Amino acid sequence: MFRDIKVIGFDADDTMWENEDHFHAIEHKYIAMLAEFAPPETVSRELFATEMANLEIYGFGVKSFTLSMLETALNISQNRIEPLRLAEILNLGKELLNQPVVLLPGVKETLENLAQFYRLIVVTKGDLLDQERKLAKSGLTSLFHHIEIMSDKQTDNYRQLLTKQEIAASEFLMVGNSLKSDILPVVELGGKGVYIPYHLTWQHEKTDEQQSAVNYLQVTDITKLEEHLCLTK
Amino acid sequence: MFRDIKVIGFDADDTMWENEDHFHAIEHKYIAMLAEFAPPETVSRELFATEMANLEIYGFGVKSFTLSMLETALNISQNRIEPLRLAEILNLGKELLNQPVVLLPGVKETLENLAQFYRLIVVTKGDLLDQERKLAKSGLTSLFHHIEIMSDKQTDNYRQLLTKQEIAASEFLMVGNSLKSDILPVVELGGKGVYIPYHLTWQHEKTDEQQSAVNYLQVTDITKLEEHLCLTK
Repeated sequence: MFRDIKVIGFDADDTMWENEDHFHAIEHKYIAMLAEFAPPETVSRELFATEMANLEIYGFGVKSFTLSMLETALNISQNRIEPLRLAEILNLGKELLNQPVVLLPGVKETLENLAQFYRLIVVTKGDLLDQERKLAKSGLTSLFHHIEIMSDKQTDNYRQLLTKQEIAASEFLMVGNSLKSDILPVVELGGKGVYIPYHLTWQHEKTDEQQSAVNYLQVTDITKLEEHLCLTK
Repeated sequence: MFRDIKVIGFDADDTMWENEDHFHAIEHKYIAMLAEFAPPETVSRELFATEMANLEIYGFGVKSFTLSMLETALNISQNRIEPLRLAEILNLGKELLNQPVVLLPGVKETLENLAQFYRLIVVTKGDLLDQERKLAKSGLTSLFHHIEIMSDKQTDNYRQLLTKQEIAASEFLMVGNSLKSDILPVVELGGKGVYIPYHLTWQHEKTDEQQSAVNYLQVTDITKLEEHLCLTK
């Protein structure tokens, strides 16, 4: 399969390492802090609504998430929350930025092998500094020919990336845990996609899998990728 | 002068458009909000100290600045500040992100002329999305062959940029308002620098000009750049 592929792009968060788990753990602590003002479902729903309302101005990433947590806490409490709680929320954001990078099983071995046959690149979105830091912590940087940190992962962003990197869409395979951000836009451009679902998906990334009537390969984990490739130099 | 130059890099904030003025205006409002807790100089000094302490974890940009404004307000007030004030600080950050882009005099004409003779690129640091948005608002995007938004502007960042973009240092000229971030690292690599001081300089960017014993050209505004170039295709 994927005979013409020369370049493989990898998403970062929840494809190469754990990420959504950390966000969930922080959101859990956040919800507990606001228990006197609203039930968990309400806090969660309002936080997500604030994040979406702020997406255009803030973009993706931990700093945006922290600012939205603060805004939501002020709104839900009608500005009655203790300032000390807000200081704690600031610290939740820092805790998230300081998370260790835990590679998913088989990532290192798979990438080391594939790097012998393909040009590997990273294609991720979020805070520039935070993503650079996670890549450095991952120890995987030397395996990649190029690292692209984009403000979003829509079709136009991928089109610009392929043009700039002089990659033909037909020779490009994208691997990631989000149908919406990693697979559909690449397939739309004429590339290929391998979808590796993660056990947690951020609500923003959810797509109706039934509605995405495009061709892509789904595998259960990254170690299953190699058997679908031709591994030709 | 600058006979071998083929590529000219331009800093963005305070080189192509006003920026520090907006930060100053916001900081002015911020200081007024905290008047009951500390005098202006103290607020200013504490805010800068917080920004520097957070630089490694947050990086540059408006979202980092907003988070540091909140942290400083909580610290200075010993968590006694009204939550409503914190909501207002969040809004100061959004106001900063929504500032219009006001080009400095002569920028458009100068860049349009230079684009006929040189490969122009943008080299800036800060929030990815915010810098992309300002470039889009500037109307200048089509004049640039490449836009590089970096997490920092130290020698290593420039070295990577020149390598990736296949630019020889001796053929690269960087134009900007910060000796520390725009001129010194490029000259260190063997490139050339044109320093255009802006009437306001963020404390972090200040360098002792006497101590920077390197060669660079200083001009009073961007329209003076052309007369120092050979304008050869």
